[in-house]
Amino acid sequence: MKKQETTKKEAVKVIPLGGLEQIGMNITAFEYGESIIVVDCGLSFPEDEMLGIDLVIPDITYLKENASKVKGFVITHGHEDHIGALPYVMKELNVPIYATKLTMGIIENKFKEHGLIKCTKRKVIKYGQSINLGEFRIEFIRINHSISDAAALAIYSPAGIIVHTGDFKVDYTPVRGETIDLARFGELGKKGVLALMCDSTNVMKPGFTMSERTVGKTFDNIFAENARSRIIVATFASNVDRVQQIINSAAKYGRKVVIEGRSMVNIITTAMELGYITMPENLLIDIEQMRNYTDEQLVVITTGSQGEAMAALSRIAASIHRKISIKPGDTVIFSSTPIPGNEKSVSKVINELSMKGAKVIFQDTHVSGHACQEEIKLIYALTRPKYAVPVHGEYRHLKTHADLAEGMGILKDNIFLLSSGDVLEISEEKAGVTGRVPAHGILVDGLGVGDVGNIVLRDRQHLSENGLIIVVITLEKYSNQLLAGPDLVSRGFVYVREAENLMDEAKLVVNESLDKCYSKNITDWGKIKNEVKESLGDYIWKKTKRNPMILPIIMEV
Amino acid sequence: MKKQETTKKEAVKVIPLGGLEQIGMNITAFEYGESIIVVDCGLSFPEDEMLGIDLVIPDITYLKENASKVKGFVITHGHEDHIGALPYVMKELNVPIYATKLTMGIIENKFKEHGLIKCTKRKVIKYGQSINLGEFRIEFIRINHSISDAAALAIYSPAGIIVHTGDFKVDYTPVRGETIDLARFGELGKKGVLALMCDSTNVMKPGFTMSERTVGKTFDNIFAENARSRIIVATFASNVDRVQQIINSAAKYGRKVVIEGRSMVNIITTAMELGYITMPENLLIDIEQMRNYTDEQLVVITTGSQGEAMAALSRIAASIHRKISIKPGDTVIFSSTPIPGNEKSVSKVINELSMKGAKVIFQDTHVSGHACQEEIKLIYALTRPKYAVPVHGEYRHLKTHADLAEGMGILKDNIFLLSSGDVLEISEEKAGVTGRVPAHGILVDGLGVGDVGNIVLRDRQHLSENGLIIVVITLEKYSNQLLAGPDLVSRGFVYVREAENLMDEAKLVVNESLDKCYSKNITDWGKIKNEVKESLGDYIWKKTKRNPMILPIIMEV
Repeated sequence: MKKQETTKKEAVKVIPLGGLEQIGMNITAFEYGESIIVVDCGLSFPEDEMLGIDLVIPDITYLKENASKVKGFVITHGHEDHIGALPYVMKELNVPIYATKLTMGIIENKFKEHGLIKCTKRKVIKYGQSINLGEFRIEFIRINHSISDAAALAIYSPAGIIVHTGDFKVDYTPVRGETIDLARFGELGKKGVLALMCDSTNVMKPGFTMSERTVGKTFDNIFAENARSRIIVATFASNVDRVQQIINSAAKYGRKVVIEGRSMVNIITTAMELGYITMPENLLIDIEQMRNYTDEQLVVITTGSQGEAMAALSRIAASIHRKISIKPGDTVIFSSTPIPGNEKSVSKVINELSMKGAKVIFQDTHVSGHACQEEIKLIYALTRPKYAVPVHGEYRHLKTHADLAEGMGILKDNIFLLSSGDVLEISEEKAGVTGRVPAHGILVDGLGVGDVGNIVLRDRQHLSENGLIIVVITLEKYSNQLLAGPDLVSRGFVYVREAENLMDEAKLVVNESLDKCYSKNITDWGKIKNEVKESLGDYIWKKTKRNPMILPIIMEV
Repeated sequence: MKKQETTKKEAVKVIPLGGLEQIGMNITAFEYGESIIVVDCGLSFPEDEMLGIDLVIPDITYLKENASKVKGFVITHGHEDHIGALPYVMKELNVPIYATKLTMGIIENKFKEHGLIKCTKRKVIKYGQSINLGEFRIEFIRINHSISDAAALAIYSPAGIIVHTGDFKVDYTPVRGETIDLARFGELGKKGVLALMCDSTNVMKPGFTMSERTVGKTFDNIFAENARSRIIVATFASNVDRVQQIINSAAKYGRKVVIEGRSMVNIITTAMELGYITMPENLLIDIEQMRNYTDEQLVVITTGSQGEAMAALSRIAASIHRKISIKPGDTVIFSSTPIPGNEKSVSKVINELSMKGAKVIFQDTHVSGHACQEEIKLIYALTRPKYAVPVHGEYRHLKTHADLAEGMGILKDNIFLLSSGDVLEISEEKAGVTGRVPAHGILVDGLGVGDVGNIVLRDRQHLSENGLIIVVITLEKYSNQLLAGPDLVSRGFVYVREAENLMDEAKLVVNESLDKCYSKNITDWGKIKNEVKESLGDYIWKKTKRNPMILPIIMEV
């Protein structure tokens, strides 16, 4: 009894463990008393300077330290940036996962790929349903997004209700399912919402995001106008409704459908099995059967809309795909916009396709899955939260979102622009950042999780820009006399045949500095190495204005 | 006499030596009989995969082989992608340069920086003026672009007139100078234009590019609305008219102007000296004088609008600029749009500025300097060329341009989409690509021009993603007995302290493979190295799914 009274006065803690600076790595912990729940568990792709890194996953040190409190992971939808790190995190934390049907199907798929068949309890939740997790109750609310079965969450805690929109848009004419449950947001608003955590992706864009259905009309027009061509459509594998619309146009215009690209096959298979895609009988054919049909009888739905080097469309464009090659007259539709950073790769693929004679179409073939300004305002108007915590954006998005929230009547002091790792404590009375937990991304390289750190990355950067020169010498154990070498080996520095003189002179420079050490009776290897590094480095810089890594190695016989 | 008759029947050759696949490196040779002229001489910035490369310049092998024929370089305007390689090329080819006044001023500046004060003859040409170069006559035609004094060229040859638009737009209300000389394009059309080589940069965009003057109005509004803030405007150094408009707004709203960033200072100084910028007296102040003024009395014009790491604005945003630091309340205007590939860097700078409390504005603060579809059509309508050779674009732009040209009545067979290095021969009777000359970009790294090739780049790529492991052993000269080692040294692979076991086991693997060689009496160093590479590579891959470069080095005592 007494305990309950004290906990009632506690604040709820909101701890984003990623997703703010590190776009993609969406994961937020909510803590009240002895209970922690975690919303989403995404991964992000490496920044340009993270050389050789495959992906980045969240640091869950805080969750591991408080493992007994963690009641479950609640997942808003099935996109990589919300589920991608689950297989890694579930190897370290064994807690239940809650998600809607399609989301869970995609998660199961992911676990299978990682060989984690029986790892944790998983429970499928329906829109409108609630689950109790320790001190929390979490309600799943229907929203629209670029994948079916996406949910917003109402997180009930003794300190009040927090509404987390997940990734959302308002679609009055969705391809599948119903419009976002605006009324429920309104009801929550009437009850009293403590804090709103709302998607900031498109907060820079005025107006209202177009309905997914508008893209279907564009597809119909393109199919009608290009009745004689083979049609290839590249889109995000996870955009199940988009794929449905391509299938609809295919059926309407009498084309067979080929699905190509590993993630496309995986997700579409799952979506079909779970009933999230309606495929007329005999419409889907295997890639091997393509040869039995003429160009005008075919549409290929493929991955690679972001110009990813190894994706199916990029391999098709580069003529290294085993089954499909571009012919003059093919029509290729990019049903996507480039994610910032991918513009050049996408252009490269378009150029390659054009050179092979394909017609490339990318106008009006995509709409965003995220809310623009007027939709975000609508959610504020319905929920009327006391506090605003913008999520899902870079700082510039969060800042713009803060201005918008202020315009919607939220007090400036009640708007919090968090960084990953911030501990925000919220109660009716007050709110503020009261601490920090570890939240740097963990780098994954091959099988290694976290074993590549800043020193390794700095070396990779240095090597990538300048290459290296290795200097090997063998010294006599006691006399320190030079027995062999110096041998100079370079990689990534200069093509040695063209720079023979330079390398010959470099060897002389090293010999001189060794002589100097010997004559000065310097026997400390560290000092000898430094001397070699400095004199050779100076010489190379003077001659080339380049700065290769110089690596002296001393052997002793 | 006889000679003239034969030459009259010759075709004129058009040879783009860069600028098509390699965006930026604009340089085109025109050859007729014993005469060659070259239009522009730009450089391009390295592609992502060109690790450590500073810049890329054109391959002028063909011009050097025909040096006696080369009569001169004719430059359309003063942007890097049209003049940047001149200092490199003029070290190898000493021929006259022809350009308008501001263009030449910027070229002189560049030569000074490279220590090339007295290298070649240079002649300033006015709009409307013509020069005779061997068999060619070249007329400079007034156009509009994002730099003053930009010219199109009418290239008269015995085979006919080729019109080269340079980079252009149609601006009916330019900030400085007059509207593009449309009438002259019309007159040339009446005379008969053999071929039109027209800017393709904005050919994907429908409509008409807005006038530069519209940006001035936006500046006025921003200055009025942010009267209490210090204002910082980032733009392209070479956009002299843009800078003029910022100066105009500064004068109007009583602010002093500070110019910051090396290239900004260089170009603006040149433009002021040559009368291309009108600066009211006492408006310009030195950066050191800033402290004598309040925020509302200052505007800083700076480089860095593309998020370039070392540019002034990026250093200001990262708090590593020596003289200027961001304060809450500062207003920062990006008067530019990100060039494809720079989106993420620009976002990074915006985030940093926002975090420090600056208000960042980038809407309606930029217009392009290149013609959109309706302007391009206008030039076709005026010149009515027989042949169309789209220039200044990636393949997808050239292809769209070709469709547009066809729509303007050019026969499909008379439209040529060239690659760099193609030799296009054109005459009234016929036209076609008849040969190829070398046209790969030459990589510049530090002082080295062309000494970094594919092998070096491949090594840099490998090192950047995987790092390396060096294995050193010392063998006894005659017996091949192991005297010292194997010593393993790694860089950019894994942080060794965390992977001690791995490296210890790796050493055992190397020892085993050396034992194997010894027991099999393998004495060939190449074979020993291969054996070490393979066994160690396999072991590392199995353990880590990584693929570091493995570099065995054998010393002999």
